[in-house]
Amino acid sequence: MGLEEQEGLKIGGIPHGTRNLITDVPGVRVGNRTLAHGDVQTGVTVVLPHPGDLFHDKVMAASHVINGFGKSTGLVQINELGTLESPIVLTNTLSVGTAYTAVVRELLRINPDIGDTTGTVNPVVCECNDGYLNDIRALSVTEADVLSAWKNCAEDFQEGSVGAGRGMSCHQLKGGIGSSSRLVTLDGKEFVVGALVLTNFGRLQDLVIGHDPAGPRIASWLQSHEPQLRKELATQRDAGSVITLIATDVPLSERQLQRVAKRAAVGLSRTGSYVSNGSGEIAIAFSTANPVPHYAKTEILPFRMVDDNAIDVVFRATADAVHEAVLSSLLHATTVEGRSGHVRWALGDILAKTEEKEAGEHDR
Amino acid sequence: MGLEEQEGLKIGGIPHGTRNLITDVPGVRVGNRTLAHGDVQTGVTVVLPHPGDLFHDKVMAASHVINGFGKSTGLVQINELGTLESPIVLTNTLSVGTAYTAVVRELLRINPDIGDTTGTVNPVVCECNDGYLNDIRALSVTEADVLSAWKNCAEDFQEGSVGAGRGMSCHQLKGGIGSSSRLVTLDGKEFVVGALVLTNFGRLQDLVIGHDPAGPRIASWLQSHEPQLRKELATQRDAGSVITLIATDVPLSERQLQRVAKRAAVGLSRTGSYVSNGSGEIAIAFSTANPVPHYAKTEILPFRMVDDNAIDVVFRATADAVHEAVLSSLLHATTVEGRSGHVRWALGDILAKTEEKEAGEHDR
Amino acid sequence: MGLEEQEGLKIGGIPHGTRNLITDVPGVRVGNRTLAHGDVQTGVTVVLPHPGDLFHDKVMAASHVINGFGKSTGLVQINELGTLESPIVLTNTLSVGTAYTAVVRELLRINPDIGDTTGTVNPVVCECNDGYLNDIRALSVTEADVLSAWKNCAEDFQEGSVGAGRGMSCHQLKGGIGSSSRLVTLDGKEFVVGALVLTNFGRLQDLVIGHDPAGPRIASWLQSHEPQLRKELATQRDAGSVITLIATDVPLSERQLQRVAKRAAVGLSRTGSYVSNGSGEIAIAFSTANPVPHYAKTEILPFRMVDDNAIDVVFRATADAVHEAVLSSLLHATTVEGRSGHVRWALGDILAKTEEKEAGEHDR
Amino acid sequence: MGLEEQEGLKIGGIPHGTRNLITDVPGVRVGNRTLAHGDVQTGVTVVLPHPGDLFHDKVMAASHVINGFGKSTGLVQINELGTLESPIVLTNTLSVGTAYTAVVRELLRINPDIGDTTGTVNPVVCECNDGYLNDIRALSVTEADVLSAWKNCAEDFQEGSVGAGRGMSCHQLKGGIGSSSRLVTLDGKEFVVGALVLTNFGRLQDLVIGHDPAGPRIASWLQSHEPQLRKELATQRDAGSVITLIATDVPLSERQLQRVAKRAAVGLSRTGSYVSNGSGEIAIAFSTANPVPHYAKTEILPFRMVDDNAIDVVFRATADAVHEAVLSSLLHATTVEGRSGHVRWALGDILAKTEEKEAGEHDR
Repeated sequence: MGLEEQEGLKIGGIPHGTRNLITDVPGVRVGNRTLAHGDVQTGVTVVLPHPGDLFHDKVMAASHVINGFGKSTGLVQINELGTLESPIVLTNTLSVGTAYTAVVRELLRINPDIGDTTGTVNPVVCECNDGYLNDIRALSVTEADVLSAWKNCAEDFQEGSVGAGRGMSCHQLKGGIGSSSRLVTLDGKEFVVGALVLTNFGRLQDLVIGHDPAGPRIASWLQSHEPQLRKELATQRDAGSVITLIATDVPLSERQLQRVAKRAAVGLSRTGSYVSNGSGEIAIAFSTANPVPHYAKTEILPFRMVDDNAIDVVFRATADAVHEAVLSSLLHATTVEGRSGHVRWALGDILAKTEEKEAGEHDR
Repeated sequence: MGLEEQEGLKIGGIPHGTRNLITDVPGVRVGNRTLAHGDVQTGVTVVLPHPGDLFHDKVMAASHVINGFGKSTGLVQINELGTLESPIVLTNTLSVGTAYTAVVRELLRINPDIGDTTGTVNPVVCECNDGYLNDIRALSVTEADVLSAWKNCAEDFQEGSVGAGRGMSCHQLKGGIGSSSRLVTLDGKEFVVGALVLTNFGRLQDLVIGHDPAGPRIASWLQSHEPQLRKELATQRDAGSVITLIATDVPLSERQLQRVAKRAAVGLSRTGSYVSNGSGEIAIAFSTANPVPHYAKTEILPFRMVDDNAIDVVFRATADAVHEAVLSSLLHATTVEGRSGHVRWALGDILAKTEEKEAGEHDR
Repeated sequence: MGLEEQEGLKIGGIPHGTRNLITDVPGVRVGNRTLAHGDVQTGVTVVLPHPGDLFHDKVMAASHVINGFGKSTGLVQINELGTLESPIVLTNTLSVGTAYTAVVRELLRINPDIGDTTGTVNPVVCECNDGYLNDIRALSVTEADVLSAWKNCAEDFQEGSVGAGRGMSCHQLKGGIGSSSRLVTLDGKEFVVGALVLTNFGRLQDLVIGHDPAGPRIASWLQSHEPQLRKELATQRDAGSVITLIATDVPLSERQLQRVAKRAAVGLSRTGSYVSNGSGEIAIAFSTANPVPHYAKTEILPFRMVDDNAIDVVFRATADAVHEAVLSSLLHATTVEGRSGHVRWALGDILAKTEEKEAGEHDR
Repeated sequence: MGLEEQEGLKIGGIPHGTRNLITDVPGVRVGNRTLAHGDVQTGVTVVLPHPGDLFHDKVMAASHVINGFGKSTGLVQINELGTLESPIVLTNTLSVGTAYTAVVRELLRINPDIGDTTGTVNPVVCECNDGYLNDIRALSVTEADVLSAWKNCAEDFQEGSVGAGRGMSCHQLKGGIGSSSRLVTLDGKEFVVGALVLTNFGRLQDLVIGHDPAGPRIASWLQSHEPQLRKELATQRDAGSVITLIATDVPLSERQLQRVAKRAAVGLSRTGSYVSNGSGEIAIAFSTANPVPHYAKTEILPFRMVDDNAIDVVFRATADAVHEAVLSSLLHATTVEGRSGHVRWALGDILAKTEEKEAGEHDR
């Protein structure tokens, strides 16, 4: 369900897809694996560009570093070759190595040619630091957890405090996984632009919901109703990150995919981000429209791309989908208590309480 | 005068400098030369990093291309060498060559060593396409106009429909030159971050003033009160550009200046930009804190830079200053009629009329 | 005539095209305009990607900055949009503005829609500093000279001390314009990779001809036979530049064209370059295989690209063509005396003299 | 011992340091862990920028991607923040994840603040694909192997078929670890530029030793004396990679370090590389001259950098050190037989045999 139906919050004027999720792009699948017990509040989210053999049937892709305080792997090769040949795995910062090895092991199992009769494979792993809620030093994510998220991949998936999003914080509230989609028309045909974000950035004072600068109001409510948060709200540095994935079936060249990836920053800015020093802000965009075979039958291959003069609908759809995905991560999150008793409130819980209160005041 | 005093519009929580202009950065000067007669509505704006000999006493600088549909010159060398050694000239797209030659000729006059006993010089010229209001094909800007803007450089300068901003459009209203500044404290000392923008981007529907999505409301008013604009408001593509200059006396390395330049995009996004295909969005940041001599006396030179852990105040100040500079360009602009009877309304004129109207309605 | 036929110098194992010039790529044309009188030793070289309307029928292109101590214009837009829509003009550093304006004026004349019913145009001008032989401060190049080079464009053109190459120095010898081509086969079809260089880099001590480190030997000969060069050979800094243009009819995407542009550096290195601080080393690659219409009839366009697994033949051809083009610039150059009596010897003249001498010694 | 003493091979005119190794840069240490049993021919090499606490006392660094067909981790953050805060680990492609986790675990052990009271850490792991000689699918490298290489770090270390270089091939001969250094003088003080390469690139036909295009001659000898290699020499694609690390105590800014990293390509080109499609060519440069504290005491920090006008000696030293390091990897390698009976001959063994043969022929 989109934020419009749920919260009356409409982001931009472009219609969204059926699920209002990145999986509205045909073939795209998402799976979560959530670890939630005591000080361990973390997990893994996997995004599959298509349900087939990713190594042999690659998709065109590009990445853009908005701010590079981050440890993502695989970006160098994406930009050199313009292709994605593995799932995209999201997890916590210190589990990148484990996720890399898990992807390698599974792709070796599926593809006996890798590392034998053909070259190696490029695992793509992106991360945010969930150390506020999660005991990140425990290195709790296992290879089995990565495979579990992979196997859970489906068209329907949960948003909020799940998967890699379990321990993440956004605008000092509970962040996590958010997703949204937009429909665009080119040459009379409908295409989908989908976004999925892992949100772990921002200060509450800066939060903007739609055009409402709600952050200071919410901060004020929290400070009076949750006095134990005062210190945290007053002092915490803005040290988070955000990963943005954009999927589409619009035919785009690698250059154009990079242009699309750059527009992620617009959607993020609208929610109050100013791209802080400590932010690992990475965007990856891929298109399923131009499959790239690992073993091509000819040396010259046909592909299709949008006329750049017609690309603005894709840029707008991207900005809106990313914008809504961030808000969706906040509104689908549930309140989580984790490491050392740290708590991140869910925006939904706060809105419910403030509405109760308002309703109560009206009753009086 | 800042927008806060003028319009009650406060952007962010960081105080601005005395003039709330880029010239609050000590040594920075700005000059305009405006051409406004009939179909010719264009001009030149010059920004001087300091009042001395720019070629022999360079400033550290970096540039960032937000979207490269633009013809700016000089960016390649800025990024390679990390220095700015000439004024920054802003003008219309087709006059870049004239501005380049004017800067060359004047710097040759000032510096007899250039091209004789030492190397050449790197003129920096940035541009937007003012072809909606200006007969850009007439190539009206002369070398003398560039020199005139240069000679007009002062700490006080006009914003709005002046200089290079004369023919520019922003959000389908009258754009042009805007500027703002912010004060930041590092190691207990006060520094200035100043921004100057040449605004020529955006659609009216997208305009956001502060947190107010005023665009659709203004569009609606214009459509009912200025019926001749209906077609233009309905159909015009978002094909503009915006140049952002950021000056500071904070000691920043070239890498850090590029990080600062990247934050220009945040300020632009907040006013409704989604970085359209047709936009030449270039940002240049320079710092006056680490002078770089053309003829150094030693082979190893001392410099200073901010600890990256302390740089967020500069990023925030940049985002806010750029944000306010865009709005300032709109609010200082005057309505201009130019080429083929094309008109761009000044936001101030519209606000005045709608307030009159509202006042009138209240009176009834 | 290639270096193999002329000098017995074969670069790599790939065959060259008919002319062994960049114009072996069907449609590509080159024209020179040479200014040579006293202290004025400079000029203009124009490369046309195809003989038609460049603005309305663009070619795919990419650029790469090997070292950015240079003032080229147009690179930003090439990389953003992946297209070239103007001739490429080569000239001296301080004449970039004049060349820019000349291109604008001529394209406005040819295309009445530019700046009126459609946007502006992106002139591409690259430069080297010919100030050793040329009185670069005189700003001798006029718009008429640029047009003259443009009108001289043909499939046959001169190399060496002509056009923009008139005043250039390479490895402290006479450099200038050099060109070469290679034939590659993909899917059983023959394609051409052509290179054109404007050489103005390097020290004589570093010169390598084929695999022969001839530099020190030549330096030694010059020092004993041309004593007035001793000081110059001993002291001059390596402050030059080199522009490399690569044309092909191989279908390449913008990403692939950038990969090709990067391989220019290999060819340059083989002749003794180590990419000095003062070098403006810019490479532009374009393909005529995927025309990009200014006014497209559909919003999605078909293209072709090489399978990256098959691209190595293009990379090798590029390295070899650039390598040979540099040597060709040296071997086609004629000795030039210019500003303040400065002289650059032609490599051919030296080789002729040393061979005479050797022949004389054999006779004895 | 350098190649000059050993082989009479002098690369360039700049003197080398005491060991002619990267460890001539004060504080730099290198350690190897070699796995060599049957089909397992692989390993790990660790480079320490200094012997102290790397996380709390970072060094300035920059990276450059020559060709991005590679899976290195950590480059994004190096370029954003300009610092290196971990060892650099080299290993085979599929072991990157294991190396990442090993570094994380060890740094967590050393630094209890990471992930608790401060942020996370950025492990830097670079790789080449040693699958020709090594059963890379076996994922033989363990976290213990990484720690072992780390603990082996010392000023003296072996080159050739050791550590990460155990299974690597260079120009279809045995490649591996190579290193070299150069001494440069700035402001009258001596500094060191050191290079370490992991070589796994190139075709034998292209090999150049010094200025001797020895490749075809060696190929010819191998084909007649090792008939079982004929097929491999004729058909193998150029699919390798090369990692280049450059260490120095010259004070360089992050921008300058990136310029230095770019010059790695010059040294590689001189040995016959044309940067093939399949090559993961990554260069990382770091300077020990400007330590960057994790917990700075002031918000503004002093640094030193070389005047760019004086930087050419560093560029030359880099090109020469990388050039010699590649040849050193070849000349220190020992012949290795690995996976499926694949053999890579050591260049030294071939030279010994051809010299014997030549000696024998002279004797007759």
